[in-house]
Amino acid sequence: MSLLRYDVTTNDWVIFAPERGRRPHEFPAGPGGAADPAPANCPFCPGNEALASPEVYALRRDGSAPDTPGWSVRVVPNKYPALSPADPPTRSTDGALFQALGGHGAHEVVIESPDHDRFLGDQPVGQVEDVLVVLRDRFNALMQDPRVQMVIPFKNHGERAGTSLRHPHWQLIAMPVVPRQLRIEHTVATDYYDRTGDCLYCVLLEEELSAGKRVLALNDQYAAVLPFASRVPFEVWVLPRTHRSSFATVSPEHLRPLAELLKEVLSRLYARLGNPDFNLTVNTAPRGDEGKAYFLWHIEILPRLTTPAGFEMGSGMAINPVLPEEAVGLLRSPGGRG
Amino acid sequence: MSLLRYDVTTNDWVIFAPERGRRPHEFPAGPGGAADPAPANCPFCPGNEALASPEVYALRRDGSAPDTPGWSVRVVPNKYPALSPADPPTRSTDGALFQALGGHGAHEVVIESPDHDRFLGDQPVGQVEDVLVVLRDRFNALMQDPRVQMVIPFKNHGERAGTSLRHPHWQLIAMPVVPRQLRIEHTVATDYYDRTGDCLYCVLLEEELSAGKRVLALNDQYAAVLPFASRVPFEVWVLPRTHRSSFATVSPEHLRPLAELLKEVLSRLYARLGNPDFNLTVNTAPRGDEGKAYFLWHIEILPRLTTPAGFEMGSGMAINPVLPEEAVGLLRSPGGRG
Repeated sequence: MSLLRYDVTTNDWVIFAPERGRRPHEFPAGPGGAADPAPANCPFCPGNEALASPEVYALRRDGSAPDTPGWSVRVVPNKYPALSPADPPTRSTDGALFQALGGHGAHEVVIESPDHDRFLGDQPVGQVEDVLVVLRDRFNALMQDPRVQMVIPFKNHGERAGTSLRHPHWQLIAMPVVPRQLRIEHTVATDYYDRTGDCLYCVLLEEELSAGKRVLALNDQYAAVLPFASRVPFEVWVLPRTHRSSFATVSPEHLRPLAELLKEVLSRLYARLGNPDFNLTVNTAPRGDEGKAYFLWHIEILPRLTTPAGFEMGSGMAINPVLPEEAVGLLRSPGGRG
Repeated sequence: MSLLRYDVTTNDWVIFAPERGRRPHEFPAGPGGAADPAPANCPFCPGNEALASPEVYALRRDGSAPDTPGWSVRVVPNKYPALSPADPPTRSTDGALFQALGGHGAHEVVIESPDHDRFLGDQPVGQVEDVLVVLRDRFNALMQDPRVQMVIPFKNHGERAGTSLRHPHWQLIAMPVVPRQLRIEHTVATDYYDRTGDCLYCVLLEEELSAGKRVLALNDQYAAVLPFASRVPFEVWVLPRTHRSSFATVSPEHLRPLAELLKEVLSRLYARLGNPDFNLTVNTAPRGDEGKAYFLWHIEILPRLTTPAGFEMGSGMAINPVLPEEAVGLLRSPGGRG
C-alpha cells in the first residue's frame, strides 16, 4: 500500500512506497540497490517473461502470444510500484496539518528491446521510434483513468542515476496530483502567456536558435539545446520546433524525426562523455491543457556527473561547474571515446 | 569567476562556478571527486595550515598565531568557491530571456576540530558547541555585506553526500539572491501566519509533540523530530521549542542544549544506520526577517540512503520507501552497530 503525505511547509506531496524499500532494520547493511541479474535471470529478457509481472502491452509483429518471446517492446507493471491502481485515492487527516492521500495511480515499465545490454543510442532508429510509439500509447492509456492528473515518463541510465536493473527500460508513473515543481513551471509559463500572448518555451527556443551558442543538433521537427541556465553539466533538452503542449498529442509522423534526434543526442553523450549515467524525463502539460498555447512539451536529459550536496538539498538551487557553451563544444566535436 | 543565470522557466537562479569543476574535456575520465588526502597531506589538519587558504577566523584558547596549529575550530575561504566577495554583483542581459548576475557572495569552510577522522557525534559536547558558536559568528559576519541576502550553512558527510575531503567540516555560502525553494517556504509560512496569527513551524512542532509518534529526542530547548512528510528515509529535523526565526539571533546560552541534542541525534544515526552518508542544512529566515513571527529556524538532516532518479529529477517530488513512524522506532531502539 502506497500513500502520499502533504508537506505543509512546501505545499507539495511526498510519495511513501514501503514496497520499494528495504525494511528499516535492513538499512544498516549499507548502501546498494537491488541485484543486477545476468541475462539468464533478467526479468526483462526474452524467455524470462514469467519473472516479470504479466504484460499490459507489447509490440508483437509475429503474432506471438502474450508473456512469451517475440515482442520488440514490452510493457509490464513495476513489481515494486510507487503508486497502484488498486490503492483508492482516499483522503484522510489527522489534526489540521497531517493530511494523507491513498497512493492511487500506476507505475509501468517499458522494456526498450529484447537486448539485455544495448544502449538506446545504438539501436536502429526504427527501434527508438517503436519505444516512443509505445510510450505515447501507454501515456494515453494511463490518462484514461479520470483520477490520474498527470503521467510522468522517465528513463534512468546507470547506477548513479538510480537504475536497479541494467536491461534498458523506461518507466511511466501516473499521478493523482500534480507535483509542485511542475505547477510552478505551468504557472510561470501561463503568466508569460498572459503578459505576451506567446509560449515561453517557443520564444526561448527561438532565442536559443538565433543565439546559436548552445545548439547541439537540429532537424526539421526538433531541436536539441543545452539550456542557458542548465542545472547540471551537459544537460540537454529536446524540444519540438512547432508548438504542442502535450506529449499525448504528438502526431505519429513526428515520432520518427524525434527518434532520429534523440538517437543522435544520446550517441553523442555516450561517445564524448564515456557512457555517462543520466536521467531523462518527459515534461508535458497536465490533464486538460493538451491543447493549450502556454506550454511546450519537451524532453530533459540530465547527466549525473556531479553529486548534489547539502547546499543543493537545502536550497533547491543548483551549482553547475560547466557553462553550457563550453559543454556543447565538447559534444559537437568529432572525437570521442565511443 | 562565478556567475548566476536566471532560469525563466522556474524563476530560480543557477550558480555557475567553473573553478569547482573539472574542465569539460576531463569529464570523459569518468565519475569521481577530488582526491581524499591522508592526514599528512590534508589541508584541514594541524601543521598543514599553509595547504588551505589563510584563515579568516579561528578559536585559539592558547593564544597561538594565525595559520599555525593551536586552534580548536578554524575557518578558511573555500579554495574552489561557488561565490566570491571579489566578484561584483553586476547584472547583465542578452536578449529578453538570458539574464545573468555576477557571482558575488562568499564560500567559507569551518573545520570542526583538529581531528582528521572523528565524527561530530563522537566529539565532546563542548567541541560541538564551539562549532555552533563559530557557525553563528561567521553567519553574522557574512551578513555584514549588505549585498548578501541570505547565508546557508551546511555539512556534507560521506561520498554519497558530495564530500570531497574527509576531514570533518561545515560550509557557509553567502548568497546575493534568495533561492526559489526557500522563498516558497517563506511565502507558505507567511500565508499561514496571515491566516492564523501563528508560526506554522511552531504549530507543526506542537502537533508532532502531542502526536508523539515521530519524536526522536527532546531537551528543554530543542526537539528532534522525523517529519510527517519526510522526503528521505530517516530525515530528522532539530527545531527550537521557543519561537525564533533566525539562526543569527540564537542566544549564546541556547547553543549548549543545541549541541547536546545534535550530538545525540548524530550518534543515534551513526550507531543505528552504520555511519550513513548525510547532508545537514540550517534553514533560517532571510535578511530583514530575523525578528519575524512567521518562521522558525531549524536544522534538517537528510541521510543519503536512496538515490533520486528520473521521477524525482523531473517532478521535484520525493519517493520515500520508509515511513517516519517506522524509522523513528529503529533510531530510538537501544541496539545498533556503533
